[in-house]
Amino acid sequence: MTIAANESYKPSTLGIIGGGQLAKMTALAAFQLGCEIIVLERKNEFPAHSLDTDFLICDWDDPNCLLRLASKVDVLTLENEFVDAEALSVVEREGYKLLPRAECIRIVQDKLFQKQALQQAGLPVPEFADTPNQQAAMAAAEKFGWPVLLKKRRNGYDGKGNATVKSAKELEVAWKQLGGAANALYVEEFCSFNKELALMITRAGDGAEATYPVVETIQHDHVCHIVTVPAAITEEVAARASQVARRAVAAVDGVGTMGVELFVASNGEILINEMAPRVHNSGHYTIEACVCSQFENHVRAVLGWPLGSTAMRAPAAVMINLLGVGEGSSEPQNFAQALRVEGAHIHIYGKSQSAPGRKMGHVTALGDSVTQAKEIAQRAAECIQFGAGR
Amino acid sequence: MTIAANESYKPSTLGIIGGGQLAKMTALAAFQLGCEIIVLERKNEFPAHSLDTDFLICDWDDPNCLLRLASKVDVLTLENEFVDAEALSVVEREGYKLLPRAECIRIVQDKLFQKQALQQAGLPVPEFADTPNQQAAMAAAEKFGWPVLLKKRRNGYDGKGNATVKSAKELEVAWKQLGGAANALYVEEFCSFNKELALMITRAGDGAEATYPVVETIQHDHVCHIVTVPAAITEEVAARASQVARRAVAAVDGVGTMGVELFVASNGEILINEMAPRVHNSGHYTIEACVCSQFENHVRAVLGWPLGSTAMRAPAAVMINLLGVGEGSSEPQNFAQALRVEGAHIHIYGKSQSAPGRKMGHVTALGDSVTQAKEIAQRAAECIQFGAGR
Repeated sequence: MTIAANESYKPSTLGIIGGGQLAKMTALAAFQLGCEIIVLERKNEFPAHSLDTDFLICDWDDPNCLLRLASKVDVLTLENEFVDAEALSVVEREGYKLLPRAECIRIVQDKLFQKQALQQAGLPVPEFADTPNQQAAMAAAEKFGWPVLLKKRRNGYDGKGNATVKSAKELEVAWKQLGGAANALYVEEFCSFNKELALMITRAGDGAEATYPVVETIQHDHVCHIVTVPAAITEEVAARASQVARRAVAAVDGVGTMGVELFVASNGEILINEMAPRVHNSGHYTIEACVCSQFENHVRAVLGWPLGSTAMRAPAAVMINLLGVGEGSSEPQNFAQALRVEGAHIHIYGKSQSAPGRKMGHVTALGDSVTQAKEIAQRAAECIQFGAGR
Repeated sequence: MTIAANESYKPSTLGIIGGGQLAKMTALAAFQLGCEIIVLERKNEFPAHSLDTDFLICDWDDPNCLLRLASKVDVLTLENEFVDAEALSVVEREGYKLLPRAECIRIVQDKLFQKQALQQAGLPVPEFADTPNQQAAMAAAEKFGWPVLLKKRRNGYDGKGNATVKSAKELEVAWKQLGGAANALYVEEFCSFNKELALMITRAGDGAEATYPVVETIQHDHVCHIVTVPAAITEEVAARASQVARRAVAAVDGVGTMGVELFVASNGEILINEMAPRVHNSGHYTIEACVCSQFENHVRAVLGWPLGSTAMRAPAAVMINLLGVGEGSSEPQNFAQALRVEGAHIHIYGKSQSAPGRKMGHVTALGDSVTQAKEIAQRAAECIQFGAGR
């Protein structure tokens, strides 16, 4: 089913499942376009809270909660992929519009299904194996060669739910730690890569696509730390990465903005690491750096509106995450110092508490070169600390 | 009293008196910085409504309403200058922080007091006269020469409350229409001007200033229609305009973002037409075109934070207002067509109803030249109509 561009636009209300920083930034884009939002969250403290008059506190895996939200809005979307796909499909069966669709979420939220779908579409992915039991995992590891990755099929993020295992013994330990029973894990070959790339694609209901620039991401402890754009790659690699990402989003029939993370393997090959059926951390730079941000294009896509331009508004951009260093207050320390850094765009998510590694905000800077933008972003990001004590 | 930069920043809550599009755009800037807002409005439908969990519906001229708002927030500010200054000063006397201060609002909201303050500061203003009665108005007109402007001292906007009178007879009629009793009106010389300029100044509590570029404004029927930047003026005129505007804001001890409208008279002289003690329509372009927008800098200034850069992010920008053409729905017609214009940043305020001349939204485009930016903005703005019927 394709969704025609809505020529007779009316101010619309977007229902967002999840109320974190991704919902907040989506809401800010929606407001500019005259739309309203209603967020569904499980607890009463969340970043999008302060800008939502009419939120619901309810369990997002409960179809009745989803139906309550659906009855109040024009279209439903989500800011995370952890919502139960079966619950989502109930909403669709009741005739409500959900984008991306439940079937897309069902596939993407399960990394094994995701990899299978991408492989079936002829797209390059690391070797992987369905491992319903420990024996199967061991066999896969022997086949791929040690080390391998043992991964949770669902609900992993920022490296949580993954283990790199170097031997049968380590696999045995990790299998227990990650809860291997009930076919919850799968095995993936360990890719040695030269670079991690990512890009955002916004896909409209009619299949139209808006492709954002290819970025380079650097992770610290499996958490996205810094995003630089343009990536230091050849035009050919960029074109190949863009094509692979577009095909990946089409393979899962994604509608809305989706993130695709890629490896450039040592042999130069591009492999899809993972996709996210939602706006993504590696696309935050688009707020300042692109004509139409990943958030605005997501709103446009799910409402059936024409997509906006993904052109860069500066030659280069760098985004650095502000991660909590400890448990404690969500007050950013040395904030005033960061505000003095000319050209640093500071985003504070407004979380209620800091925790080690928790994403508390980010800084974006534009520049004539990645080096220049990085210098500015780093200078501001280095000032700010969350939860460091006094 | 100066307000020191707040080195130990905490996420703060801003109370905004008034809930129109200026409050909405201020709120969007505040949210990015991790702040929250509470709006005080008189009626239950307003553009900032959908993004404010905790608004107050109450009369903003009633000190008790202002005190209720003040008790819930860290600092109070306003999005219009129509609030009774005496009511505002009650809030200050109770020890709450209001920026700009009641005394600043008292002076600026009364165009006669405003002109007197600017004149006393040695700043160039058109000739004007306090006219407590019709006789005095007649005498002033004879002195300045016909035509003259008869202006309401308070609550005028977009040309409402002004009359250009060409003769004693016209003055007599206008005096009655505008309600001349009780010293409500004053007389100003009619300036023939070549250009209307405007610029935004953000002034911090410690007197630090951020000066935005000088823009050219074109009015249709006394309503701001189009803003182009940079203005087609010499560097000398731009420097003089900036200096005059900074001095004007300092003359009324303004804190926050303020708009200053200027005439370039036929003899080349710069005269201050009017100032606004708040963010201003002629500064909307700064959202996309400047590193730090007028709204973000307003938030920074009233919270005592360092000001951000006003540097342009493109060589040129053009902003066009989307005005209602008739009474009716607030649904923008031909919206999808406008969304297809590459490079057009569309803002829809989300008002409940359209009315002729009502500001319903705006479009900004950036470009390498004013001509290029104007072409883009016009193409998008021309599509959209509010209240045109079907």
